Amino acid sequence: MPDARLLETFATPRSSAPIVIEHVAEEFTSLCPKTGHPDFGVVTLRYQPAAGATDGCIELKSLKLYYQSFRNEGIFYEAVTGTIRDHLVAAMKPVWLQVETNWRGRGGIRSVIRADFGDVPAEFRGR
Amino acid sequence: MPDARLLETFATPRSSAPIVIEHVAEEFTSLCPKTGHPDFGVVTLRYQPAAGATDGCIELKSLKLYYQSFRNEGIFYEAVTGTIRDHLVAAMKPVWLQVETNWRGRGGIRSVIRADFGDVPAEFRGR
Amino acid sequence: MPDARLLETFATPRSSAPIVIEHVAEEFTSLCPKTGHPDFGVVTLRYQPAAGATDGCIELKSLKLYYQSFRNEGIFYEAVTGTIRDHLVAAMKPVWLQVETNWRGRGGIRSVIRADFGDVPAEFRGR
Amino acid sequence: MPDARLLETFATPRSSAPIVIEHVAEEFTSLCPKTGHPDFGVVTLRYQPAAGATDGCIELKSLKLYYQSFRNEGIFYEAVTGTIRDHLVAAMKPVWLQVETNWRGRGGIRSVIRADFGDVPAEFRGR
Amino acid sequence: MPDARLLETFATPRSSAPIVIEHVAEEFTSLCPKTGHPDFGVVTLRYQPAAGATDGCIELKSLKLYYQSFRNEGIFYEAVTGTIRDHLVAAMKPVWLQVETNWRGRGGIRSVIRADFGDVPAEFRGR
Amino acid sequence: MPDARLLETFATPRSSAPIVIEHVAEEFTSLCPKTGHPDFGVVTLRYQPAAGATDGCIELKSLKLYYQSFRNEGIFYEAVTGTIRDHLVAAMKPVWLQVETNWRGRGGIRSVIRADFGDVPAEFRGR
Amino acid sequence: MPDARLLETFATPRSSAPIVIEHVAEEFTSLCPKTGHPDFGVVTLRYQPAAGATDGCIELKSLKLYYQSFRNEGIFYEAVTGTIRDHLVAAMKPVWLQVETNWRGRGGIRSVIRADFGDVPAEFRGR
Amino acid sequence: MPDARLLETFATPRSSAPIVIEHVAEEFTSLCPKTGHPDFGVVTLRYQPAAGATDGCIELKSLKLYYQSFRNEGIFYEAVTGTIRDHLVAAMKPVWLQVETNWRGRGGIRSVIRADFGDVPAEFRGR
Amino acid sequence: MPDARLLETFATPRSSAPIVIEHVAEEFTSLCPKTGHPDFGVVTLRYQPAAGATDGCIELKSLKLYYQSFRNEGIFYEAVTGTIRDHLVAAMKPVWLQVETNWRGRGGIRSVIRADFGDVPAEFRGR
Amino acid sequence: MPDARLLETFATPRSSAPIVIEHVAEEFTSLCPKTGHPDFGVVTLRYQPAAGATDGCIELKSLKLYYQSFRNEGIFYEAVTGTIRDHLVAAMKPVWLQVETNWRGRGGIRSVIRADFGDVPAEFRGR
Repeated sequence: MPDARLLETFATPRSSAPIVIEHVAEEFTSLCPKTGHPDFGVVTLRYQPAAGATDGCIELKSLKLYYQSFRNEGIFYEAVTGTIRDHLVAAMKPVWLQVETNWRGRGGIRSVIRADFGDVPAEFRGR
Repeated sequence: MPDARLLETFATPRSSAPIVIEHVAEEFTSLCPKTGHPDFGVVTLRYQPAAGATDGCIELKSLKLYYQSFRNEGIFYEAVTGTIRDHLVAAMKPVWLQVETNWRGRGGIRSVIRADFGDVPAEFRGR
Repeated sequence: MPDARLLETFATPRSSAPIVIEHVAEEFTSLCPKTGHPDFGVVTLRYQPAAGATDGCIELKSLKLYYQSFRNEGIFYEAVTGTIRDHLVAAMKPVWLQVETNWRGRGGIRSVIRADFGDVPAEFRGR
Repeated sequence: MPDARLLETFATPRSSAPIVIEHVAEEFTSLCPKTGHPDFGVVTLRYQPAAGATDGCIELKSLKLYYQSFRNEGIFYEAVTGTIRDHLVAAMKPVWLQVETNWRGRGGIRSVIRADFGDVPAEFRGR
Repeated sequence: MPDARLLETFATPRSSAPIVIEHVAEEFTSLCPKTGHPDFGVVTLRYQPAAGATDGCIELKSLKLYYQSFRNEGIFYEAVTGTIRDHLVAAMKPVWLQVETNWRGRGGIRSVIRADFGDVPAEFRGR
Repeated sequence: MPDARLLETFATPRSSAPIVIEHVAEEFTSLCPKTGHPDFGVVTLRYQPAAGATDGCIELKSLKLYYQSFRNEGIFYEAVTGTIRDHLVAAMKPVWLQVETNWRGRGGIRSVIRADFGDVPAEFRGR
Repeated sequence: MPDARLLETFATPRSSAPIVIEHVAEEFTSLCPKTGHPDFGVVTLRYQPAAGATDGCIELKSLKLYYQSFRNEGIFYEAVTGTIRDHLVAAMKPVWLQVETNWRGRGGIRSVIRADFGDVPAEFRGR
Repeated sequence: MPDARLLETFATPRSSAPIVIEHVAEEFTSLCPKTGHPDFGVVTLRYQPAAGATDGCIELKSLKLYYQSFRNEGIFYEAVTGTIRDHLVAAMKPVWLQVETNWRGRGGIRSVIRADFGDVPAEFRGR
Repeated sequence: MPDARLLETFATPRSSAPIVIEHVAEEFTSLCPKTGHPDFGVVTLRYQPAAGATDGCIELKSLKLYYQSFRNEGIFYEAVTGTIRDHLVAAMKPVWLQVETNWRGRGGIRSVIRADFGDVPAEFRGR
Repeated sequence: MPDARLLETFATPRSSAPIVIEHVAEEFTSLCPKTGHPDFGVVTLRYQPAAGATDGCIELKSLKLYYQSFRNEGIFYEAVTGTIRDHLVAAMKPVWLQVETNWRGRGGIRSVIRADFGDVPAEFRGR
C-alpha cells in the first residue's frame, strides 16, 4: 500500500539554491485495479526545493522504498501520478514539483501522465 | 467503420488536476480510399481533462477498440486525424486536446498530421 | 525540369482545421549545376492549409511526381528550396508553409536550407 | 578534497564576445558520504565569460584536475553541484553560469542536479 | 594559416529570402597551441543571408578550403570559433550568423563553443 | 484469407546466380484467432532462387498483395509463419528459403518465429 | 510462488516443423532473497518444439501468468533462470530450449544468465 | 546506361596483400523498369584484390562515375546487383568479390540482394 | 590495492548446470601508473561455473567491493585485466572464464583488453 | 612523414597471456595524394602479443604520436593500412595482428580497408 510515512527529507543545502533536482526511477511497478495484471513504468520526479527549508529535499533511499510500496497496489495510472505528487508536495513543500509517469502500456498503447504542482518552469513542460 | 460509440469515459480523478495525459497507439491501420492498400501509422493523443467532469478521461481499452474500428475503413490521413479529434472532443470535452498521426508513408514520403482543439500548450506544438 | 503543373490539390477537409501537415520525402535527388554530379537530400514540407479552400491541400502522389521532376535538373541547394516553396505556395495558398532541404553533402560538409512563407509557428523554426 | 586553488583562468578573448562555452566531463567520480561507495556522473559546465575580463575563462586542464580532486571526497550530489558552481563563479565572475550533474544512480534511480548563477538563457534551462 | 581570402561568395538568390542556411563540416582539425597535438571537431555555420546582396551567400567549396587552412595552425578553441565568425561576417554581411564548434576533447572533457553575430533567432540558441 | 494464387514469379536472372534475396515487409497484420484483436509484425523472407528456373523469383508487388490477404484472417503466429513458408516454397522451389516473423506482441511479450526450408546457410540462422 | 501448473501447451503445428520460437518478456520482476528489494529483468525463451507433439508449444498467455507468479518470490538470478528452464522443459519436452535472463542490476553491475537444454544451435549461443 | 568502360583500376599495392577492401556507396539510384519510378539504395562492394595484379584495385572516382551511369536506367534490383558484380569481376579479376544492394523499397517492403564471386569468406556472408 | 580476499563465492546451483553467467560492471576506475590520472572503464566477466562446486559462483556484492579496491591503484590496462582474471579463476575454478575491459581512453584512443581462461566458447570470442 | 621510430614497446605482461588487445584511434587524418585534400578515418589495431617477449606490446602514447606522423603525408587508403600493419608487425612481432581503417569517404562512398598478419581469429574477421 502506498505509504507516505516512508518518505524522509533533509534540509535544502544552504549554498545550493536555486537548484533543480530530477530523480528518474526506471523500475516502478504496480497492479491494474481492473485485471490484477502488473503495470510497469518509469517515474520521473522534478522539483525546486524551498530555500532554507529543513525538510526541503527528499532522501533518495526513502524515495525508492516509497515507490516500492506501490508494488502490490491495484491503482490506475492517473491515481499513481496524482498520489505521488500529493505525497511529495506534502513532505517537501517545494517551490514547484512535477511527477511524470511513463508506462510501457497494454494492447499496443503506451501512456504518459504528468501532474504538476506550483509554477513548473516552461522548459520542463515540453517533451 | 469508425464508431464513436465504442468510446467510454470515466470521471476526472479529483486529486489529479491539473494533469496532462498522453496515449501513444503504435499499431494503427486503415485503408487508402483511392487504392485500397493498407496505411499504417502511430496515433498520439494528448489532452488535459476537464476538472471535476464525470466523463473527463478516456478509458484505455475502449480507445483501443475505437482505433480498431478504422481497420477496414477507406479514409484519408487528414480525415483520420480530424475524425479522431472530433469524436474524442465530443466524448470528453477536455480543456484542450491534440491528435497527431504519424504515417509510415507511401512512395518514399512519410507524413505527420496534427489536429488541435482548444489552447494546446506551446510545449506540445513543437516536434 | 521542375514542373509545377504536376502539382494537384484537393479541398481542405471541413472538419480538419486547424490542422498542420508534414510530408517528409527521403529520396530527393537533383544535379549540381557546376559539376553535374548528383545531389541527394531529404525534403520536408510543412504547412497549414487555408480553411475552406478548394485547393488547400497537396495531393501526395502529385507531390512525389513533382519532386521527381528535379531528377535531372542542374540546380543549387538554395534554388531547389526556394523553388519548391514558391511553387507550393502558388498552388495551395496556405496560411503558412515551410520547406526544409537536408543534403547529404559534398567534401565533408552537410547542408540544411530552410525557406519559409507566412507566419511559421515558433515550434517549427528550431532544429 | 575539492580544491578550488587548482582552477586556473585566462583572459576572455577579445574578439570572441558574446560567446557561450560548454565543457562536458564524462568521467566524474566522488564517494557517497553515507555508504562510502563510489558515485559516477557526468558534469556539464556552461557559461558566458565576462567581456574584457582578464580571468574570464577557465583553463581546461586545470578544470580536469579540479574535478579529480573530488575523487575520494564523501559528498552528496547536491553539494557537488553547488560547490562546483560556487567555486567556478568565484574564479571567473561570468555573466551567467550553469552546472549540471548527471548521476548513474543507485537502486534503480538516476538523478540530475542543476545549479544556476545569474541569468541563464532559456535555451539552456530545458532538458 | 587561417586565410579569409579563400572565402568566395555569391549573390543571395532573389526568390529565396527569407532563408536560413546551415553548413555542418564534420572534419575540422587544427593544432593545440600549447601541446602541438591535433584537435578534431565539427564546425556548424548558420546564417540568414542579406536580401538582395551580391555577396550574401558563402560558396561551399571555398568554405571547405578555408576550413582546411586551419589544419596546421596552433589555435585555441575559442579563437577558432571567434575567427571563423569574424571572417564570415566580414565576407557576407549577413542578417545574423552563428558559428558553433563541437570538439572531441582531451582528458575526458568534450567542449562546445558558440559565437553569435546579430540577432540569432531563439530556435538556434538552444542545444 | 491467405491466398497463394496472388503470388507471381519471374525467371531467375541468368547472370545473377548464386544470389541471395531478402525482402522485409514491415507492415504485416493479421488477427488473433482467440480474441479477434489485430496482431502486427514484420515478415522477413530470405531465399536463394533455383538457377535457371523460369519461376525462381517472387514478384514484389504480388508478394505485397499476398501478405495483405492475411489482414482479416484469424491465425496464430506459428501458422502465419509456416503458411507463408509453404506457399512460397511451392511457388518458387528455391534452393533454400527462410521466413521470420517478428511480432510486436501482447501483454509485454514480443515473439519471433522462424521457419526454414532446405539448407539455410549458417549466417542467416543467427539473430 | 513460481507455479508450473499455470503453464499450458498446445500441439506443435503440423506444417510448421522445423521451426524456432522466441518469446521475449520485457517486464519480469522478482525479489532479492537477501534484501527483499525487487529485481527487474527481461526473460527470453527460445526453443524448437518437438515435431508431432500434442504439447509441444507453450501458450503465450499462460507463459505470462507463469512469469507473474515470480512477482513476490525471493529468489536468486541463477535460480530464476534454472527454474524457468526446468519447468518449461518438463511441460514441452522440446528438441532444445534456452532461457536467458537479463537483469537491470544492482550497484552498477548488470547481469545476464543463460541456461540451456539439449543441443542449442550455435547461432543462439552468442550474444 | 551502365557503362563498364568508366571503371578504372590500379595495381594491387605490393605490401598490402592479403587485404580486404570495402566501398559503401550510400547514394545509388536507378529506375524501376516497370513503373519508371526511381529506386534508391546503398551499394556495398567487398573484395580481395589479386596479389601482384596490375589492375587489381578499383579506382574510387571511376567507381562513383560508373554507379552514376545507372541513374536513368530502367533495371530490376537483381539485375543491378548481378551487373555490377560481373563488370567489377571482369575489370579486376579479384580473389573473391561481393556486391550487396540494400533498397529503401516500395509499398512497405525493403529488399537486400547479394551476389558473390569466388570464395567469399564466411565473415562477410552473414548480416 | 586490489584485494582478492574480498571475493566471496557460493555453490553452483544444482539444477542450473550448464549455465553461463555474465556480469557487466559499468563503473570501474583505477589510476594510470605513469601519470596518476584516473582511468575509467567497463569490466565484463563471463564464466561457466564448475558443476557441483561449493565455491563455483561469485557473489555479486563481493565482486563490486573487489572492483572498488582498484580505485586508487596505479596499474596498466593489461595488468588490470590479467589480475582480475587470475583472482577470479583462483576463487572459482570455473570451466572457463573471460574478462574484458573496455576503456574510455586517452588522447583519442579507446582500448579493449580481453583475457581468457580455459576453453571459452566461440560465441564469446567475437566482438 | 610516417615515422616508425616513434613506436615504443614494452614487455608482454607475464600473467596476461593469452590476451587480445584492441586500440581504436578515432581521430586519424592524412592527405589524398591526388588532390591534396585531407582524409579522415578511424584506425583500429588488434593483436595478440607474443608471450614472454620484451617488446611484445605497443606503448599507447607512442602509438598516438606515430599516427600523428601521417598528418601531412599524401598517401592512399590502402597504403596507410598496409604501412601501419608492416610497421607494427616489425616493432612487436605479435602472434597475429590486424589493422582496419574506416574512412569517412569522398563523393558519397565510405571505405573500409583491412590488412591482416598471421592467423587472425575468425571472430575478428567479420564486421
